[in-house]
Amino acid sequence: MSTEAMNTEGLQQAARAVVLVSGGLDSATVLAIARSQGFECYALSVDYGQRHKAELEASKRVATMLGAHAHRQVHVDLGSMGGSALTDAGIAVPESIEPGIPVTYVPARNTIMLSIALGWAEVLGARDIFLGVNAVDYSGYPDCRPEFIAAFETLANLATRAGVQGRGFTIHAPLLRMSKAEIVTRGLALGVDYAQTVSCYQADDEGRACGRCDACRLRSMGFNEAGLPDPTRYANA
Amino acid sequence: MSTEAMNTEGLQQAARAVVLVSGGLDSATVLAIARSQGFECYALSVDYGQRHKAELEASKRVATMLGAHAHRQVHVDLGSMGGSALTDAGIAVPESIEPGIPVTYVPARNTIMLSIALGWAEVLGARDIFLGVNAVDYSGYPDCRPEFIAAFETLANLATRAGVQGRGFTIHAPLLRMSKAEIVTRGLALGVDYAQTVSCYQADDEGRACGRCDACRLRSMGFNEAGLPDPTRYANA
Repeated sequence: MSTEAMNTEGLQQAARAVVLVSGGLDSATVLAIARSQGFECYALSVDYGQRHKAELEASKRVATMLGAHAHRQVHVDLGSMGGSALTDAGIAVPESIEPGIPVTYVPARNTIMLSIALGWAEVLGARDIFLGVNAVDYSGYPDCRPEFIAAFETLANLATRAGVQGRGFTIHAPLLRMSKAEIVTRGLALGVDYAQTVSCYQADDEGRACGRCDACRLRSMGFNEAGLPDPTRYANA
Repeated sequence: MSTEAMNTEGLQQAARAVVLVSGGLDSATVLAIARSQGFECYALSVDYGQRHKAELEASKRVATMLGAHAHRQVHVDLGSMGGSALTDAGIAVPESIEPGIPVTYVPARNTIMLSIALGWAEVLGARDIFLGVNAVDYSGYPDCRPEFIAAFETLANLATRAGVQGRGFTIHAPLLRMSKAEIVTRGLALGVDYAQTVSCYQADDEGRACGRCDACRLRSMGFNEAGLPDPTRYANA
């Protein structure tokens, strides 16, 4: 994770990075971090049939607000496979944080999203891919663990022409070991307007949050623990 | 690669497997192999914007012909990313086999297809995923190498709830070290009707092959070397 883009003094072109941007709090922070490291950022949003389409609208706002060079949305129809509260209308979104792997876990989601990011990175000649997995999610989702990220980086370098030719990929997960409070503190320092982001698993069409689901609770705790005002737009506020 | 389904004497339900089926010669053979091992097969075709849509039509015929329990087609819009002769109309399909990684290489294709297969496998409770990469492709495509398959298997067991809970995945690539001649010989022994399959990168709307592209040449060589008649339907025959 040592690769840094060099664009100082205009002598060298900024290195490109693909940044997975969902429209939520974490990935917005990651985009701001990647930009602060000097990368020319290509924001990628994957629509996998999730319920919270308001997040995808938010992803466009976030990409623009944080100066992404380009933004692309790719559709993958995972909804028809079911298996998660986020893609299957028959499974309720829980309104409390439960131990173990939550029903909001989407089978192989991060693997699929990273794979698509890898394909785009190779086309762009980018060697750096950023995503917003973090330690809080890590407690429940298997594909948010450090060993998952390391295994994907190994795979990426075996799977691609760029990897074979020795131009290795780096998977950056800068939030991996940060608390939500640390994340929002960092993001605010980098100028992220969190009112533009949507984390809620069941936001309404206007992007207003329910305030009750896992994602809302974790997000709210972050602002509370950081001693910062919560700028989230709630449906019942 | 030792997992075998047990459905002998009806005492045990057949294990499920997800089989990536493109409609080409290799994946049809793999589906026949998986069935011969007793798996209840869930055929998965990924439409990633490739030119050869006739292959996807062929995938439906192949799934039916070889007794897949179900067949699902998932769309991923990689075409808009370009970067390959198979997805970018601006890059010509080559008509000779060239050294190195061919322009028909689709960035991260097998990673993306395996990721989607992994998601479906987890939803189905399947632990086995089959795909038709082989030693001939391996000479050119980085994501057809044994080390790629091994790395994906490692990733799959870190990425998923099933992996975390100790019900590991096996990625089966039974053609990995087989020549095209061995593949067609094996497939014919298992009853595969190769006239129903389409391998050509630029087949016409009727699924008739050009006879000139890499895929056609490799396929034709397979039948020749095996001393078997080539049942392929050619456009100019």
